[in-house]
Amino acid sequence: MGKYIFGVDVGGTAIKIGLFSDGVDLIKKTSIATPKEDINVEKGELATGDKIIPAIANEIVRIMKEENISAKDILAVGAGIPGPIDSRGYVLGCPNLSLGVFDVKKKFEFILSSIIAKELNEDVKISVYPLNDADSAGLGEKYKLTADEGKIYSDIVFITLGTGVGGAVISDGKLALGSCGGAGEIGHIIVNYDEEDKCGCGHHGCLEQYASATGIVRLAKKYFGFEEGVSAKDIFDKAKENDENALKCVDLFAHYLAKGLGNICSVVNPEVVIIGGGVSAAGDIIIKNIEKYYKNYVFPPCANVKFSIAKLGNDAGIYGAACYASDNIV
Amino acid sequence: MGKYIFGVDVGGTAIKIGLFSDGVDLIKKTSIATPKEDINVEKGELATGDKIIPAIANEIVRIMKEENISAKDILAVGAGIPGPIDSRGYVLGCPNLSLGVFDVKKKFEFILSSIIAKELNEDVKISVYPLNDADSAGLGEKYKLTADEGKIYSDIVFITLGTGVGGAVISDGKLALGSCGGAGEIGHIIVNYDEEDKCGCGHHGCLEQYASATGIVRLAKKYFGFEEGVSAKDIFDKAKENDENALKCVDLFAHYLAKGLGNICSVVNPEVVIIGGGVSAAGDIIIKNIEKYYKNYVFPPCANVKFSIAKLGNDAGIYGAACYASDNIV
Repeated sequence: MGKYIFGVDVGGTAIKIGLFSDGVDLIKKTSIATPKEDINVEKGELATGDKIIPAIANEIVRIMKEENISAKDILAVGAGIPGPIDSRGYVLGCPNLSLGVFDVKKKFEFILSSIIAKELNEDVKISVYPLNDADSAGLGEKYKLTADEGKIYSDIVFITLGTGVGGAVISDGKLALGSCGGAGEIGHIIVNYDEEDKCGCGHHGCLEQYASATGIVRLAKKYFGFEEGVSAKDIFDKAKENDENALKCVDLFAHYLAKGLGNICSVVNPEVVIIGGGVSAAGDIIIKNIEKYYKNYVFPPCANVKFSIAKLGNDAGIYGAACYASDNIV
Repeated sequence: MGKYIFGVDVGGTAIKIGLFSDGVDLIKKTSIATPKEDINVEKGELATGDKIIPAIANEIVRIMKEENISAKDILAVGAGIPGPIDSRGYVLGCPNLSLGVFDVKKKFEFILSSIIAKELNEDVKISVYPLNDADSAGLGEKYKLTADEGKIYSDIVFITLGTGVGGAVISDGKLALGSCGGAGEIGHIIVNYDEEDKCGCGHHGCLEQYASATGIVRLAKKYFGFEEGVSAKDIFDKAKENDENALKCVDLFAHYLAKGLGNICSVVNPEVVIIGGGVSAAGDIIIKNIEKYYKNYVFPPCANVKFSIAKLGNDAGIYGAACYASDNIV
């Protein structure tokens, strides 16, 4: 009998769950809808995972039954959650899911053990390692890069360009969490001190205002005559067809991204920057445009960086959560 | 008989050497002049420490004789060097000392062993752990903060405001080196994309152009009517006497510093920012002015940072080098 790890990726719409071997090979994956209602939220308070965690635990146990896996063969569960998670395993709020502050590690472990006891009649405590979802995606892409290139990268910056911009910093092989799980919040470094529009975080000129899918559309409409309804994908597609305004928009997007990445790389000096998230599907056009500007904004000794497009797509989160669990097994 | 660690701080003018207990208590310190001539430099090539390393090794052995310490009681030597040092112990160039690229760890260990064999008649190899000098000062101040407050800080940004601006990032208790020893080069993050004057690194708008001693003087002369010969200390002294132009100059200096620190803290989320270097002697006026602006530039979840003025002054380097050696002893 082998040993197993579960990797969980909690999203606003769906929760993805992967069953992995102890070598982090994906055996099977499933998905459940994210429960929207939550007892405390109905009372007008912040949720503490009272619906989400049992839903995940039930799905894990369902897979265990289906695959005929005993709880004692589960090494650990990793879980990516869309909010800052500190080193104790506390989630420190999550606006997308209306989560408050609570010990997600302890709660998840308790609920999972209870359901295992009830459903499988086993008295086993499985360790759960929660982490931020962008961190989780970053670890997943690190794993993939190593698998593809046969080379271990120890210093990595991962940036995810989606509806917002998030990221992860991996320093000497280890995920940087920071003092309250906020390390890698690189969507909110400021790249334009003259910006008049406000970012969701309340500041002006955050990288997210230029480099997220929403940000690109904002630039396209504000400066390049694109109309309501245009998507980031439309803009990249038109740029690939040499549409002049789309090319200018991609150039401006990449210029701000280069400014942001220049500063980030002067602080943490990575060997590789992995670009993920929905926007990264545009591919090498992003890298080509970043490289036009990047060296103007990074401290020269830190300039030797490889840019790489993420490869795991929607599976990055479950892979990374499984890697994090695997790294944390004592 | 106790065990000992040496901490070395290589500067452009002087090399400071501290003898420490294995608990990193300072027992004694000395200083030698930095040898300026070096064989390779005379040939127009880059130096590889052929004069500096033997000079340090000789001084270490002199102290050992004076204190009657056997080589087998030396646990390790840490050495802060003004250039990027990678995880292997290579220095990757050092313009201030005309150093080229070489394995400073291996060379230092070989020369130290040879001198110990000759002078003390002992056949012992002592491990040497080289690191960047700003990193070393950062570790020294981390040690001091822990000693003073009885609390261990795991996530720290150290910034040194001297002739230039350097720094160190400590993540989860460990010094971040980055892929080629360039992590913490926070003097060259860009805080003003409209700057017309050029930084020494070739870019425009680096934090160093505003927050170093030289940078403050530049601001004072360019914008506030100060004349040639004014020093950073003069400006802070006048600000403390409520001189209007000096107050404006300190305000502008702190505003740029807040912009830089905001971005740095969004990337690595430290619990404390320690401000060192000669400029930090101005004291709390710096913190008071940073705090006026800081929260406008940091991602709100990372905003809860304590600012602290460095306390070890010129001894930070030897303390930090000793701490680094101590941390690396297997």
